[in-house]
Amino acid sequence: MRDSTQSVYELFYWPGLQGRGEFVRLCLEDAAALYIDVARSPAHGGVDGLLRVMREHDGDGPAPLAPPFLRHESLVIAQVANILHYLGPRLGLAPDDERARHYALQLQLTVADLVAEVHDTHHPISTGLYYEQQKPEALRRTEAFVEQRLPKFLRYFERQIARAGGAFALGSACSYVDLSLFQAVEGLRYAFATAMRAIEPELPALVAVHDRVAARPKIEAYLRSSRRIPFNEHGIFRRYPELDLAPSWAKSS
Amino acid sequence: MRDSTQSVYELFYWPGLQGRGEFVRLCLEDAAALYIDVARSPAHGGVDGLLRVMREHDGDGPAPLAPPFLRHESLVIAQVANILHYLGPRLGLAPDDERARHYALQLQLTVADLVAEVHDTHHPISTGLYYEQQKPEALRRTEAFVEQRLPKFLRYFERQIARAGGAFALGSACSYVDLSLFQAVEGLRYAFATAMRAIEPELPALVAVHDRVAARPKIEAYLRSSRRIPFNEHGIFRRYPELDLAPSWAKSS
Repeated sequence: MRDSTQSVYELFYWPGLQGRGEFVRLCLEDAAALYIDVARSPAHGGVDGLLRVMREHDGDGPAPLAPPFLRHESLVIAQVANILHYLGPRLGLAPDDERARHYALQLQLTVADLVAEVHDTHHPISTGLYYEQQKPEALRRTEAFVEQRLPKFLRYFERQIARAGGAFALGSACSYVDLSLFQAVEGLRYAFATAMRAIEPELPALVAVHDRVAARPKIEAYLRSSRRIPFNEHGIFRRYPELDLAPSWAKSS
Repeated sequence: MRDSTQSVYELFYWPGLQGRGEFVRLCLEDAAALYIDVARSPAHGGVDGLLRVMREHDGDGPAPLAPPFLRHESLVIAQVANILHYLGPRLGLAPDDERARHYALQLQLTVADLVAEVHDTHHPISTGLYYEQQKPEALRRTEAFVEQRLPKFLRYFERQIARAGGAFALGSACSYVDLSLFQAVEGLRYAFATAMRAIEPELPALVAVHDRVAARPKIEAYLRSSRRIPFNEHGIFRRYPELDLAPSWAKSS
């Protein structure tokens, strides 16, 4: 017997990397939600458990095409922004009104676009090939990313946070968008340290959101725990020295 | 004076191409909604009107990073899946219950992933360069797309439609997801005719959804109208003969 306040969330994501699962994990951790990280828990089936749900999905909705996905009661849903749109109100990490929830979803989908572009800096040709099999293309794509895309996205978030006029991206209350922006900044610092050092001085509002999220007690404890997988070169944010480029806009200042 | 049934939707998207705006336009057309296609309407400001809203946005939410975006009453929202999540219930193109709306959003975000990958077949390095400046990389990325990604996405949608067990992706009622699947099939037929001819025989449920959407009276009328911009090489789905590749999985059958 369990009531809704005790209901368990099951997160399904590949073990060994933060990847897209981390955006969900940060919400569950910040809210101190009861959750099982299925693929990292042999007692709950491990990776086989994840694959089994994908293969044998018999819910009333579509199967996931790929992890991460979430199971809660009998609901199974995939796609990070969709999962956060579901979890946000339940975990106290979304605005109350419908209008602002659309704003949150808009910003989250823009984070998702940034994350997809970061992924493609090291995999511009195919996810079915290793980075080592697409290095010249990766270098060329990363040059364009660091020159144009990284500043475009980050300056956009900076402007939106500033105009919201509060401590967080949507105003005074912390939402799942802020946790995702924290993760994006952390990941970009790991992967593109040179460009981030150059641009951060012009992003005070974004850096402040990052710092406020990092200082939240549950997040702080999580980041120090073994549940936080370190960044590594299996994830989306990868530190390849040859891709940690100095953008021309930084050199000119 | 106007009541909600008469309220006007304003769609903001670049003129001259279908692009991501088309997923929104199909919903507005199918529902016979009152809408203004601002950038295509000189009387409503044209492209300058679009740029002005982006530049001078003073709503209570974030500005759009890029078109398409929608204005409805004083609400301005961007990101296709977010716009459809807003419009769906208002236009009778979304399920009634929250649970199924998450299923719709999940599928729509998977369509968005497919669309982003299609875009990157001709722009694998940078959106800031012309196709002609990234042709070798485009060919290599397209090979991987046609070999692996196109069948992965389309077989996934086929399975989910089949298991929903109705005439449409989520069951018996047509939703914005179906309109988007229609557009994806149309676009893929235009851009990757060879691969689509090879794979369509194994996609009866997806093709049936496509055909049912095409036969809806409002959609049929729209497709015959001058409001439907023809596919062209400025959009996401582009017909470059050198990228219309025959996949190996087709040749082996």
